[in-house]
Amino acid sequence: MQERYIEVRWSDPSEILKAARSGRYRTGLDFLNAMFDGEIPRPPIGELLGYGPESFSEGRAVFSAEPGEQHYNPMGMVHGGVAATLLDTAMACAIHTQLPLSVGYTTLELKVNYIRPVTVGTGRIRAIGETSHLGKKTAVAEGRLVDENERLLALGSTTCLILS
Amino acid sequence: MQERYIEVRWSDPSEILKAARSGRYRTGLDFLNAMFDGEIPRPPIGELLGYGPESFSEGRAVFSAEPGEQHYNPMGMVHGGVAATLLDTAMACAIHTQLPLSVGYTTLELKVNYIRPVTVGTGRIRAIGETSHLGKKTAVAEGRLVDENERLLALGSTTCLILS
Amino acid sequence: MQERYIEVRWSDPSEILKAARSGRYRTGLDFLNAMFDGEIPRPPIGELLGYGPESFSEGRAVFSAEPGEQHYNPMGMVHGGVAATLLDTAMACAIHTQLPLSVGYTTLELKVNYIRPVTVGTGRIRAIGETSHLGKKTAVAEGRLVDENERLLALGSTTCLILS
Amino acid sequence: MQERYIEVRWSDPSEILKAARSGRYRTGLDFLNAMFDGEIPRPPIGELLGYGPESFSEGRAVFSAEPGEQHYNPMGMVHGGVAATLLDTAMACAIHTQLPLSVGYTTLELKVNYIRPVTVGTGRIRAIGETSHLGKKTAVAEGRLVDENERLLALGSTTCLILS
Repeated sequence: MQERYIEVRWSDPSEILKAARSGRYRTGLDFLNAMFDGEIPRPPIGELLGYGPESFSEGRAVFSAEPGEQHYNPMGMVHGGVAATLLDTAMACAIHTQLPLSVGYTTLELKVNYIRPVTVGTGRIRAIGETSHLGKKTAVAEGRLVDENERLLALGSTTCLILS
Repeated sequence: MQERYIEVRWSDPSEILKAARSGRYRTGLDFLNAMFDGEIPRPPIGELLGYGPESFSEGRAVFSAEPGEQHYNPMGMVHGGVAATLLDTAMACAIHTQLPLSVGYTTLELKVNYIRPVTVGTGRIRAIGETSHLGKKTAVAEGRLVDENERLLALGSTTCLILS
Repeated sequence: MQERYIEVRWSDPSEILKAARSGRYRTGLDFLNAMFDGEIPRPPIGELLGYGPESFSEGRAVFSAEPGEQHYNPMGMVHGGVAATLLDTAMACAIHTQLPLSVGYTTLELKVNYIRPVTVGTGRIRAIGETSHLGKKTAVAEGRLVDENERLLALGSTTCLILS
Repeated sequence: MQERYIEVRWSDPSEILKAARSGRYRTGLDFLNAMFDGEIPRPPIGELLGYGPESFSEGRAVFSAEPGEQHYNPMGMVHGGVAATLLDTAMACAIHTQLPLSVGYTTLELKVNYIRPVTVGTGRIRAIGETSHLGKKTAVAEGRLVDENERLLALGSTTCLILS
């Protein structure tokens, strides 16, 4: 039986929290852009699953990943949890772009509709999150997972609680 | 900045499909138990995220994981996608236990309610999936993610399409 | 073409709000029980859709309805919105039973899994809501819609925001 | 205590099924347009809740309603079940427009995110359903509930099973 392996490296995630509290960044958008530019280390989960940011703007966040064999479920496809993680990330970050960095938030719920299977052959996948509503206490975002030809792979929606 | 790393090893996942098609296992329950016993390699996603099976019975599947720093999001907590992956796995396998192995299935949708944050300090977490309804064309399952004291961390529900 | 009709009667719903603010009731449970006993008028939506309370206890609320032709969709079955309304009511009231009456709440999201069709022939249906988690800022409840033989017709889950 | 009442009238819903089976209509879109034009009676649930069709096109269905006191929950707002019913209707009909009339479908699950409360003062509300994916066995649709100023009141998503 053939053995495969990868090495996963990440930085101490407390560095990210330290940066968040440093006062250097005013909004979630500033902070996410600094992470994108490499000023702030990327979170471990992104290194583990192999996804990273593509772009951020007000109310919008895009992440992408290259599906690999390490994501596979017993049916020989990328596990639905990978799509859920990417969509959750993109939707939560879409909301985060519109919050002052002093304001926390947490995900209350997540729903994913799976539309097409993802395999290594799918090629690069992108999760696009967009804020649907930003209130004082809660926010709602929607997300789409697409392939390089913009074919829809999965849909998501989420509610976040804003902690002020 | 401190660097951390893990090595993730897995076996060629086509071995799992080969076993599934071998005719040696009659039902999903037989198959999952053989995986549990090490007769069949475990799927890569479980090795990557560090989760594995705890127990299987008709209409019920339990998986567990030790939360690690590699699962962390930028807020210093285990990313919600990890809970989603464990719940999805436990719920889909609960349905799988009740299907003949010749019958395929696919997840149509997944919903997760996040109740308590998960950190390294949470200790071992368990996802318990149970079939709520098994029809000819679709099945519905529910799941709970709990800590070692049975405190509820997250809730899930899912619909699977049965492919006969 | 045969015409059918029903008359729907209800009381001024501002009477319900007046009772809620009267100081006569301490908790949501007291209040719901007073509504059950007829001290407080029932809400219009219950009169319109023909459903009413069956029982209330801490963290649990049961409502029931007799499916009628007036609930039918074009496919000759009770519209899924009726199940959604009953489940939403039972789940939100389950949470309400555990809140002081001075504390408001609002439904953030609702999910329903439809399992069996409901028709006039189904007979009386019951929605059982139970609190899964009651936090300071949010609460989560689950619900089941069953027929008189306890057969599962639909499943629900909901998140409420607690407004203190 | 002031009593209010409305009369609700509807036609025998078996007339709708008869029309569906008459062979006069080729697609769901033809059928829905005939219902819109009054050739086919409207379903009872629409008469009961007071909503009706606004427009149909391939993959899109719009329904509207005037919020009334009869829709109120005990908190003096339109019950969330009304939004759920409108969204479910618009999303399912969006899918129906793209199916041959000989092909049935059924709703597997529905999720609604509630964004703003609806009251009599909200004015006319519209539910816009759009097909996100039409497969051979299942279809996914999304919906938005908006007021007359296009302000978002609620969001929905649904999975339908296609019965061929």
